[in-house]
Amino acid sequence: MGDRRTMKASVLREDLSIATVERPMPEPLADEVLIAVRAVGVCGSDVHYYRDGRIGDFIVSGDLILGHEAAGEIVSVGSAVSPERIGERVSIEPQRPCRLCGQCKLGRYNLCASMKFYATPPIDGAFCEYVTIAADFAHRIPDNVSMESGALLEPLSVAIAACRKARVTAGSTILIAGAGPIGLLLIQTARAFGAARVVVTDPVPNRRSRALAAGAAAAVDPAAEKLPSESFDVFIDASGAQPAIASGIAALRPAGRAVLVGMGAPIQEIPVAVIQGREIELTGLFRYVNTWPLAIELVSTGVINLDELVTGRFGLEQVQTALSADTVPGAVKSIVYPDTSFVAKDGTSIERLDFAETVS
Amino acid sequence: MGDRRTMKASVLREDLSIATVERPMPEPLADEVLIAVRAVGVCGSDVHYYRDGRIGDFIVSGDLILGHEAAGEIVSVGSAVSPERIGERVSIEPQRPCRLCGQCKLGRYNLCASMKFYATPPIDGAFCEYVTIAADFAHRIPDNVSMESGALLEPLSVAIAACRKARVTAGSTILIAGAGPIGLLLIQTARAFGAARVVVTDPVPNRRSRALAAGAAAAVDPAAEKLPSESFDVFIDASGAQPAIASGIAALRPAGRAVLVGMGAPIQEIPVAVIQGREIELTGLFRYVNTWPLAIELVSTGVINLDELVTGRFGLEQVQTALSADTVPGAVKSIVYPDTSFVAKDGTSIERLDFAETVS
Amino acid sequence: MGDRRTMKASVLREDLSIATVERPMPEPLADEVLIAVRAVGVCGSDVHYYRDGRIGDFIVSGDLILGHEAAGEIVSVGSAVSPERIGERVSIEPQRPCRLCGQCKLGRYNLCASMKFYATPPIDGAFCEYVTIAADFAHRIPDNVSMESGALLEPLSVAIAACRKARVTAGSTILIAGAGPIGLLLIQTARAFGAARVVVTDPVPNRRSRALAAGAAAAVDPAAEKLPSESFDVFIDASGAQPAIASGIAALRPAGRAVLVGMGAPIQEIPVAVIQGREIELTGLFRYVNTWPLAIELVSTGVINLDELVTGRFGLEQVQTALSADTVPGAVKSIVYPDTSFVAKDGTSIERLDFAETVS
Amino acid sequence: MGDRRTMKASVLREDLSIATVERPMPEPLADEVLIAVRAVGVCGSDVHYYRDGRIGDFIVSGDLILGHEAAGEIVSVGSAVSPERIGERVSIEPQRPCRLCGQCKLGRYNLCASMKFYATPPIDGAFCEYVTIAADFAHRIPDNVSMESGALLEPLSVAIAACRKARVTAGSTILIAGAGPIGLLLIQTARAFGAARVVVTDPVPNRRSRALAAGAAAAVDPAAEKLPSESFDVFIDASGAQPAIASGIAALRPAGRAVLVGMGAPIQEIPVAVIQGREIELTGLFRYVNTWPLAIELVSTGVINLDELVTGRFGLEQVQTALSADTVPGAVKSIVYPDTSFVAKDGTSIERLDFAETVS
Repeated sequence: MGDRRTMKASVLREDLSIATVERPMPEPLADEVLIAVRAVGVCGSDVHYYRDGRIGDFIVSGDLILGHEAAGEIVSVGSAVSPERIGERVSIEPQRPCRLCGQCKLGRYNLCASMKFYATPPIDGAFCEYVTIAADFAHRIPDNVSMESGALLEPLSVAIAACRKARVTAGSTILIAGAGPIGLLLIQTARAFGAARVVVTDPVPNRRSRALAAGAAAAVDPAAEKLPSESFDVFIDASGAQPAIASGIAALRPAGRAVLVGMGAPIQEIPVAVIQGREIELTGLFRYVNTWPLAIELVSTGVINLDELVTGRFGLEQVQTALSADTVPGAVKSIVYPDTSFVAKDGTSIERLDFAETVS
Repeated sequence: MGDRRTMKASVLREDLSIATVERPMPEPLADEVLIAVRAVGVCGSDVHYYRDGRIGDFIVSGDLILGHEAAGEIVSVGSAVSPERIGERVSIEPQRPCRLCGQCKLGRYNLCASMKFYATPPIDGAFCEYVTIAADFAHRIPDNVSMESGALLEPLSVAIAACRKARVTAGSTILIAGAGPIGLLLIQTARAFGAARVVVTDPVPNRRSRALAAGAAAAVDPAAEKLPSESFDVFIDASGAQPAIASGIAALRPAGRAVLVGMGAPIQEIPVAVIQGREIELTGLFRYVNTWPLAIELVSTGVINLDELVTGRFGLEQVQTALSADTVPGAVKSIVYPDTSFVAKDGTSIERLDFAETVS
Repeated sequence: MGDRRTMKASVLREDLSIATVERPMPEPLADEVLIAVRAVGVCGSDVHYYRDGRIGDFIVSGDLILGHEAAGEIVSVGSAVSPERIGERVSIEPQRPCRLCGQCKLGRYNLCASMKFYATPPIDGAFCEYVTIAADFAHRIPDNVSMESGALLEPLSVAIAACRKARVTAGSTILIAGAGPIGLLLIQTARAFGAARVVVTDPVPNRRSRALAAGAAAAVDPAAEKLPSESFDVFIDASGAQPAIASGIAALRPAGRAVLVGMGAPIQEIPVAVIQGREIELTGLFRYVNTWPLAIELVSTGVINLDELVTGRFGLEQVQTALSADTVPGAVKSIVYPDTSFVAKDGTSIERLDFAETVS
Repeated sequence: MGDRRTMKASVLREDLSIATVERPMPEPLADEVLIAVRAVGVCGSDVHYYRDGRIGDFIVSGDLILGHEAAGEIVSVGSAVSPERIGERVSIEPQRPCRLCGQCKLGRYNLCASMKFYATPPIDGAFCEYVTIAADFAHRIPDNVSMESGALLEPLSVAIAACRKARVTAGSTILIAGAGPIGLLLIQTARAFGAARVVVTDPVPNRRSRALAAGAAAAVDPAAEKLPSESFDVFIDASGAQPAIASGIAALRPAGRAVLVGMGAPIQEIPVAVIQGREIELTGLFRYVNTWPLAIELVSTGVINLDELVTGRFGLEQVQTALSADTVPGAVKSIVYPDTSFVAKDGTSIERLDFAETVS
C-alpha cells in the first residue's frame, strides 16, 4: 500500500557496513503484538555478525537488522490478542518456535528446527523503531523494572538456562570462566540459585573487579595465578576459550557438571579421560527456554540487578559505535535507544549517550 | 605362619612377563568372604596392563594378579558374615569402596577416592585360586546362571551402567560404536531397557555379524558406509576411537545423550558446537555402581545371554595365551579357569581349552 | 449455509438418552485436518457420562457427542496444512491445548488450563462420521497398524504416561490393581519398558486370565488371596478402588512409586505414614502428553498388541449397546464404526457387530 | 570390668517417668568416636515418647535415653579412627545405617532396614554425658558454629531434606503448614534454596510472628483467614494436621509438589482427585540423608541462623521440664546441657537455664 507507514531501522549490509534506513513498519499477525522498541542491548553475536558477516552456518546475505535484547511498549495487537494489552511495558523473548514439532511439544522450543530468531539471518532483529512478536513472547514487566533491565532479561535468560542445566542449588560451588556480561550475570544468578561460592577466571583486571563486585568469592587471572585447589560442583564456561574449558573441566569434582555457554572454536580438545574417570556431565546451551517468568521475578524483587551492567547508551544512528564499544576498556553492556527521547524517562540523562564518558 | 596355606596364582611381573607362582592364600576380614574362583573373564584392561604395563596413572611396579571378571564358590567367611553362605555360588563385584566418604554415602561408591579395585595396581585380581571380597559384593547367583555367566556379569554391569547414564527407555534409538564384548553387551542391554532400534558401527566384519545376531537392526562399516540418516536419541561409544566419537555425537538428535565407555586417547577433539547447538549431554563411565541385582535378574530370566560370548577357555598356566586371544580372528571373550576340573561342570568339554579350536 | 454438508452423529442428550442425529460437518481451521472417522473405542469415561451425566465438574448440559479413542482418514486440510496429507491414515490425539500458556510451553500441554478435549462437555467427540483436530495431533499410522489399533493408541497412551511417571525401567517389579483395558495395557507397556515382573490384582476371574495372557507373572484375587510377600518398585492403580490403592501403596518398597490412574472417590483414605516412613512418591495421571510417537512405535513393531483387546464391534446406531457392553462378562473393549462398510477392510466380518457373539 | 567408668544419663522409664541415673560410659567401636555431649535439642519426637510411650511401632519397653539433636567434643576414638580427631568439635548425625544393604549403597541410607537411630527404642540417645557414633557421622563444625547450632543441624537437616524432595529452586513459591521449629527452619531453608515467596499457616499468633521474622512473605491464621489465591509450586506440611494437608495440596499449581514432614494420623483423607487432575507429586520424609555438609555450609556462612531458635536451656536434671517446655507460650526450641559448666562457653549465662525467664 502506498500509504503504508514506515519506520527507521539500522541495518547491517552484506558488505558489513551499517546504515540507517526507512523500512515498512511490521504488522502483527493474529497472535502477535506490535511493540515500539525502547531499549536494545548489544550482544556479542551482534558484534560477531558485524565483524565476520556470519556465525557458523548463518551468513549475512542481504540487509539484516541486528539486536535481539529488547524491551518496549505494545502499541497494537493482532486480531487474536486482547486489546487491553496495548500500552503494556514488555520484555521481548526474541524467538518464534513453530509450536508444532516434537521439541516444541516436549517443552524444548529453543531446539525447534523451524525456529525464527531475531537478528539471525534472514530474520530481522530490534535495532529499529517497531517489532512484532507472538503475544506470549512479549512478557509484561512490572513498573519497577526499567526498559534497560527489560532488554537485559535476555542475557539474564542465558544465565538462568545455564544454572538450570548445571543444576545449581543451595551450597553449590561454581567456577565460571569469563567475566563479560554473561559471566557477570552468571555470578548473580548462581547466587540466586543458592550457590555457596563462585570463583571466576578472566585475564582482564577490571572484569575481575566487576566479578568480585557482583558477588564472586574470588576472581583469578588464569595467566598469572593457579585456581584454588578446591574441586567444584559446577563449571560454566562463558569464554569460549579452549584452555579455560579444559582447565575448568579438570577442576570439577567427581560427578560434577560442565556447561559450555561461550561460543568458541566449533571443535575443541576436551579432556575425555577426566570426563570418564570422574563421570562428569558436559553439556552446552542453545539460547534458553521458559526463562522469562523467573528472570522477571529475580529482577523485580531485587535479587538480581541488571541496570548496573549498562556502560553506554546510543541512538539508532550510533549503532556502529555501539557495536565497537566492546573494545573500550571497562565497557560491559551497551544499550541502543531507537527513540532517544525515551532515555530520560528511565532516569538517564541524554548526555550519557557518548560512550567514552560513560564507562565507569 | 609356617603352616599358612598357599594357592596358585598367575602374576604379571614388572618386566611384563607372566608367571604362575605360589602365593599365600588370602584370609577374609571380618566382613569378607573367601571365594574359590571358578571362572574369570579376560578384559581389555588386563590385556592393556600386559602389553603396556600401565593404564593412565596406574603402573605395574611389582607382581600383580590380573583378572577382575570373576565368579566362584564361597569356601569360608569372616567373623561378621553368616556361615550359611559357605557353599554359595557367587559373582564377584570386584570393588572395595571405603563406604565412609561423601561419594559412597551419596550412592556413587564407584567414584570413591579410596577405592581398591581388583587387578588395578597394586591391588591383586582373580587369576588365582582364591580371592576375598566384602560379603555384600559377593552376589549370589541362581543355579541357572553358569559360572561363566557369573564372571561376565562384570562386563554386563558396564553395559547396564552405560544404559542408565544414557537413560535408555522404551522406544529409544541408539547408536553404538564398537562391537567388541562391551558393544555386544550394550546391544542386548539396550534392548532389555526397551530400545526400539540399535545401530552398531565396527570395521571388523565378523564383529558386525555378531552385532546383528545380538539384536542390532543394522551394523555399519564406518570405513565404507554412511550411517543411516536418522538422528539417534543415544550414542554410546565402546570403541575409544576419535572418529567414532566425533561422528557418533554428530548423529544425535537435539537433546540427545552421548556416553563414552571405551578407553581411548585421554584428550580428544570433540564437536563442541554440536554439543551446544543441540544441547547434547555428554558423559563417561567409571566402572559401575549398584548394577549386580539387575544384571543377575536379566541373565537369570533369559533376557540377556552371556554364555554365547565365550570363545575360548584357558587354565591358569595358559593366562599368557588368554591375554593374547584378542588377536585371533573371531575371538570375543576368553575365560580363565583357575581349577580346570570345574570346566566340565559347566557343560563344557575340557578339550575346548585350546583356544584356536574353540573360536566359533 | 443452506448447502452445508451434514453428517451422522450419535449424541448423548441431557436426559442421558442416546440418539443418532444429523449434524453439520465440521470444517477444519487453518491448522487443522478433517478426518473421516473409521474406528472409535468406547472408554469408561464415555460410559460414565452416559450413566451419570457428569464426571466431577464436567456436566452434560446439552447434546454431546461421546468418543475420544479414534482413528480415521484425512479427507481435507486447513489452509496451513500440506494437502499431501489428504488420504493419510491417522490416529487422533483428542486434545486441543492452547500452546501459549506456561504449562504448554513447559512440555506439559495436558495440564493446559484452556484444554479442549474430545467428549468432555461441551466439546464434542468422535462417535460421528467426521471430526477435526490440529494437524500435528493427527498422527500418521503405518499400514501395519489397523484402524482399531489406531483408535486404541489413546488408552495405550494412558499406559505409557503411567509407566513414564512411575519411571518403569529394566528390572522393575510392578503391582497393578485392575485388569480392565487400562490394566491390561499397563501389563504390556510395563514389559515394553523392561519390567522384570508384573503382578496384577482383580476380583474378576476372566480379567485375571487375560492379565496372565498379557504377560503378568501372577494375577491375584484381592478378595481371596494375599499379595506375594515381595516389595514392589512400582504400584499403578487402574481400579480407583480405595482398598486396592491402600494395599498397593503398602506393598511398595522404600522409595517406591505409586501412580493413580483409575478414577475413584475424589477424597480417599491414604496410608500417609507409609508414604512418609518409606519415602514413597505418589502421583496421578491427567491423560497423557507426547505419547503418540512411542505408542505408534510399540504397536507397529509388534511389541504391543492392541487388536487382541477388541471384544465387540458396533455401528453408530448401536452406540447405546456399545456403552452397555462393559456389563457383559468377558467384554474388554468395544469399537464403534461410524461407517460399518469399513469393518471388513480391517479383516473383521460385519457379522461380528453383534456383541454377545463376539466375546472370546 | 569393675573399674569401668560411668556417666550420668537422663532416662525415660517404661512407666514414662524421667530419672537421672548412672550408666556405664559407652566405648567406641573401631570405626567410632566417643563424644562428650555439650548441647542436645529437645525434639517433638522426644516429647511424644515421654507422653505416649510410643511412636507407631516403636514402643518404650525399658529405660531409654532420649535426645537425638546433639553436638559435642570428641574425647576418644576407635582403633580405625585418626587420633588427631580428639578435641574436635562435632555435630552428631544420629543414625547408624548398615552400609551394606541396597538402600545404603544406593545413597538412601536413611531408608536402611537395619538402621539404629538415637532415641528410638531400644537405641539410646544423647541426654547423657557421653555418646558414640561412627566417625563419619560426627561432622566437624567450624569455630563460628556454636554447640547449640551444632545440635540444631539435626532439625535443619529435616528442612534441607524436605526442600530437596520438593525440588525448591530459584523463584519457587512455597506454602508451609506449621511454624514450629521445623516450619521456621523450612522458611529459612527454602529461602536459601532460592525460593521467591514463602507463605506460612499456623493458628498460633506468636508462631506467625516468628514466621514473618524468619522470612515468610505472609503468615496466615488458617482458622480465620483464607490462603492467598495464588497457586504454589510447593507445599510442605510441618503440622501433621489433616485439614492443613488437604488445603495445602489443594493450593498447589498443576505439577506442584507436596512433601509431608509433620507426623500426624497414619491414615488420612487425601484429595486424590486433585493429585490426579493436577498431576501433583506427593511424598514424605523419613529423617534425612547426606544433609550435614550443606547444613554446616549454610550455618557457618550465616545464610541460616539456628541460635535464634533457642528459647530455653536446661541441665540433665531438668529434662522433664525441658520435655514439657512446648506447652509454654513462645517456646520454640529447648536445649539440654549434660554438663552445665559449658553453657557459659557459648556466651550464654547460666541463669538462663530457668525456662520461664528465657522465653523471648
